[in-house]
Amino acid sequence: MTKYTIGVDYGTLSGRAVLIEVGTGKEIASAVYEYPHAVMDTLLPCGKKLGQDWALQFPQDYVDVLTSTIPEVLRQSGVASADVIGIGTDFTACTVLPVKDDGTPLCDLPEFAENPHAYVKLWKHHAAQDKANRLNQIAGERGEKWLQNYGGKISSEWLFPKLWQILDEAPEVYAAMDHFVEAADWIVWQLTGVQTRNSCCAGYKAMYNKATGYPDKAFFKALDPRLENVIADKLSCPVTPLGQKAGGLTDAMSKKLGLLPGTAVSIGNVDAHVCVPAVGIDTTGKMLAIIGTSTCHMMMDTAEKQVPGMCGVVQDGIMPGFAGHEAGQSCVGDHFAWFVDNCCPASYNDAAKAKGMNAHEYLTELAGKQKVGEHGLVALDWWNGNRSVLVDVDLTGMMLGMTLQTKPEDMYRALIEATAYGTRMIIENYREHGVAVEAFYASGGISQKNPLMMQIYADVLNMDVKIAGTAQGPALGSAIFAAVAAGKAAGGYDDVFTAAGEMGKVKDVVYHPVAGHAKMYDKLFAEYRILHDYFGRGTNDVMKRLKAIKAQA
Amino acid sequence: MTKYTIGVDYGTLSGRAVLIEVGTGKEIASAVYEYPHAVMDTLLPCGKKLGQDWALQFPQDYVDVLTSTIPEVLRQSGVASADVIGIGTDFTACTVLPVKDDGTPLCDLPEFAENPHAYVKLWKHHAAQDKANRLNQIAGERGEKWLQNYGGKISSEWLFPKLWQILDEAPEVYAAMDHFVEAADWIVWQLTGVQTRNSCCAGYKAMYNKATGYPDKAFFKALDPRLENVIADKLSCPVTPLGQKAGGLTDAMSKKLGLLPGTAVSIGNVDAHVCVPAVGIDTTGKMLAIIGTSTCHMMMDTAEKQVPGMCGVVQDGIMPGFAGHEAGQSCVGDHFAWFVDNCCPASYNDAAKAKGMNAHEYLTELAGKQKVGEHGLVALDWWNGNRSVLVDVDLTGMMLGMTLQTKPEDMYRALIEATAYGTRMIIENYREHGVAVEAFYASGGISQKNPLMMQIYADVLNMDVKIAGTAQGPALGSAIFAAVAAGKAAGGYDDVFTAAGEMGKVKDVVYHPVAGHAKMYDKLFAEYRILHDYFGRGTNDVMKRLKAIKAQA
Repeated sequence: MTKYTIGVDYGTLSGRAVLIEVGTGKEIASAVYEYPHAVMDTLLPCGKKLGQDWALQFPQDYVDVLTSTIPEVLRQSGVASADVIGIGTDFTACTVLPVKDDGTPLCDLPEFAENPHAYVKLWKHHAAQDKANRLNQIAGERGEKWLQNYGGKISSEWLFPKLWQILDEAPEVYAAMDHFVEAADWIVWQLTGVQTRNSCCAGYKAMYNKATGYPDKAFFKALDPRLENVIADKLSCPVTPLGQKAGGLTDAMSKKLGLLPGTAVSIGNVDAHVCVPAVGIDTTGKMLAIIGTSTCHMMMDTAEKQVPGMCGVVQDGIMPGFAGHEAGQSCVGDHFAWFVDNCCPASYNDAAKAKGMNAHEYLTELAGKQKVGEHGLVALDWWNGNRSVLVDVDLTGMMLGMTLQTKPEDMYRALIEATAYGTRMIIENYREHGVAVEAFYASGGISQKNPLMMQIYADVLNMDVKIAGTAQGPALGSAIFAAVAAGKAAGGYDDVFTAAGEMGKVKDVVYHPVAGHAKMYDKLFAEYRILHDYFGRGTNDVMKRLKAIKAQA
Repeated sequence: MTKYTIGVDYGTLSGRAVLIEVGTGKEIASAVYEYPHAVMDTLLPCGKKLGQDWALQFPQDYVDVLTSTIPEVLRQSGVASADVIGIGTDFTACTVLPVKDDGTPLCDLPEFAENPHAYVKLWKHHAAQDKANRLNQIAGERGEKWLQNYGGKISSEWLFPKLWQILDEAPEVYAAMDHFVEAADWIVWQLTGVQTRNSCCAGYKAMYNKATGYPDKAFFKALDPRLENVIADKLSCPVTPLGQKAGGLTDAMSKKLGLLPGTAVSIGNVDAHVCVPAVGIDTTGKMLAIIGTSTCHMMMDTAEKQVPGMCGVVQDGIMPGFAGHEAGQSCVGDHFAWFVDNCCPASYNDAAKAKGMNAHEYLTELAGKQKVGEHGLVALDWWNGNRSVLVDVDLTGMMLGMTLQTKPEDMYRALIEATAYGTRMIIENYREHGVAVEAFYASGGISQKNPLMMQIYADVLNMDVKIAGTAQGPALGSAIFAAVAAGKAAGGYDDVFTAAGEMGKVKDVVYHPVAGHAKMYDKLFAEYRILHDYFGRGTNDVMKRLKAIKAQA
């Protein structure tokens, strides 16, 4: 009898449930629910104004995703609830909220409804930058060893800067919360009635290390004496490795969803990390790049390697038993969107329209006719700073080589190539620090839509590029973990490696490097690298000085 | 009784005559004649194909300018021929043609009508680049001192590379010519019946030096043994300083033009150089920048100073008695045209149209609302290489500082600023090599049309910017020299300095630097300078390597 699991993928603006066939990974039905409150970055629902760089969400929206989409995929597919053996979820991270002991979000309490700090702080809430700066400075001064697990710098997007901001700006919210939890774990709590804390979020976003735990009290005390006992006070829930079952569906929730009570629910997970088994990766040496507006690079290794400029290394952070290494490029697809919005001439829009294409497709078609190096350009892909390997938000974009003959498609292609060079920097940096990268997989929207870009990646990296078999990578990954939570006896799997092997998918088409292209790109990458180091490693800090002048202006 | 002179300005596509009132410089009438043969860069009139980088013209078109426009300005103005005391001309340079002893162009002889080398080689004929390279190499190896009068490098646009190309590719044309003359001098020959060779063309384009003459025979022999006696063979006409009378109008020509026989005709001149008296400059320390698609920078000094990277220094090259120094930026307005053609989004075109503006005006309006440094960008103005001070055609453009918030007007303004920084580099280079630059004048189309750009120049240079009083600077300058050729007794002047003082004009509006802006631009220029030297002086030759890769592709 065929069994199914449901993967629920929580994005920035909506949640999507996909019903998946166990064993094959086949997608049977899919439904999306857009968060009614979307991202609150200017006003609270009550009309209260938010500060600059704030980004909040409303937790009930997440629950409504479940009650809207899961009945819908059951209805679409006609699959019986008895044949659905598990639910898995993945979330944006670090997306965190303060809750009471029973899981009630503080923003649901009347006394906190008008307090912005009582709401969910979305991953892209950037109003705790000063806290992150201070935390990095103190950790650096104290020589905290865990800092090197995060490439030497932690981000303002992560848990402790956000929590510290609450303590400082709304001590009453800090005092009232019993736990500060990832939305990834909170939604699992809503499904199962049990609080858990997953190893992925804890490791990548809350500086938790399987061997050494969280940073010690003395460190937190050095940040702020009131934080000395923050772990015991607000993060007391033990950490569970990925691949475990969090619990069974509660009676109440099972009624709302139309599933059986006790249906297995997997431990929470993160949208990028969960994509790894979805392409069938089950061991070390295989990088998955999830390419969208930005790119995440996932790598497993047998041991935690401290690699400068990566986002983090976490034991059990991607798949249990392995050290998951994450790196990232903060701007990839966003470059092309920026270019089309700001640099695409009217004549190109007209020509695209005449061909029934959008501007991206038209520019890509023209760029695809070029030989490697023909446009004479090189760019640095730093329109939104550099995450890996320089970890510097103050870096900015650069392009050179323009002449009066330079065309829009030349610059568009140069931006594509710049993102490929950025990925190659990350790969070479891994290799230089003992993490083997032997295969390359691409997932995410762009990997599905842009063959030219994938060919350029193959040529620049001089590696085969395998493409995810689905555009719904996170939901498939969550469904795989759901099958593992259910276990073999229930028709699922006892381990995620077998599940990934059977349910993970890549497309038949593989982009192979063309020898002549790869040789040419070696030369061009050498130029990128010189400029990368010149502008990125302190020889010429012009980008930072320009930002300072800009701030002064 | 009011007297008049006529200035005739020969451009790349047309010639313009302007009738000017002596004493005031007032423009009384103006007429334009477009060359019927325009620029021949693909075919000869007979249908014969031209090679790459060729650019020819047809000499009769220049004569037709005279017979078309001069009667027309007389008709328009109603001025009597007896009151027109002189004619002056200026030309593009180095625009050269092979002629017989009587001035007949070789292309007018039936036996050469189908030989491209018998025609006028226009200034932008670039097919003699290999000759220029070889000439520079040999001159460098021999340590020819005159080379430093040209910033260390001569251009393929100049006289000897073009003449050497004829010798090599069409020795029969070389043999048949009695003289190889600048069109600037040929048109004067047509007016007066007398061959002259003006000091401006001879100095800037044919390596003539007032004190030492042309390069010596040994040098020419080293180029090619057949060139040993090139000066005696093809450039035998003596050089006359600017400000002299070339002769009087011939009877035949006077009939065609409707002027009196014997009307004074001034020595030939070049379109850029002749603009200097037109803004009233009459001494050292005052730079005139003629700003159009590219920019020429004219400076007089009491002595010939060898300034690295300038285009040339020539005694009597701008005004008699002074050493005229010329520098240049090879791409100025062309940057903005490129930007509007290749980078201006449809929404901007629409918004401009709604405001009754063109894209340049709209972008300028938006850019003008910004504070200095607000856009966070810096660019190198090298989309067409760098003339001064790096003398390197293989340099290319660069822009940095872009973020996802960068708008088209930011980049447009950055390009304007880059050209201002390029001018400041030239001024600082002059100052570092003993040429005082104490005042700044701007002429040419952009100076008349773009107040924002002129204010940016004032702020970047931290100097007042005075603006030419007419858009017809060359024609006014030629008319001033015509008044000097006529002499005081005839109602003109005995020297060009008095003439410039009385007839030269600047606008009432002067752009003064704003102290706060200038201070900010000092910081931004410091960044430009670091990048200029890094990319331009050999630290990182990435631009050249990319060009090599491009050529290989």
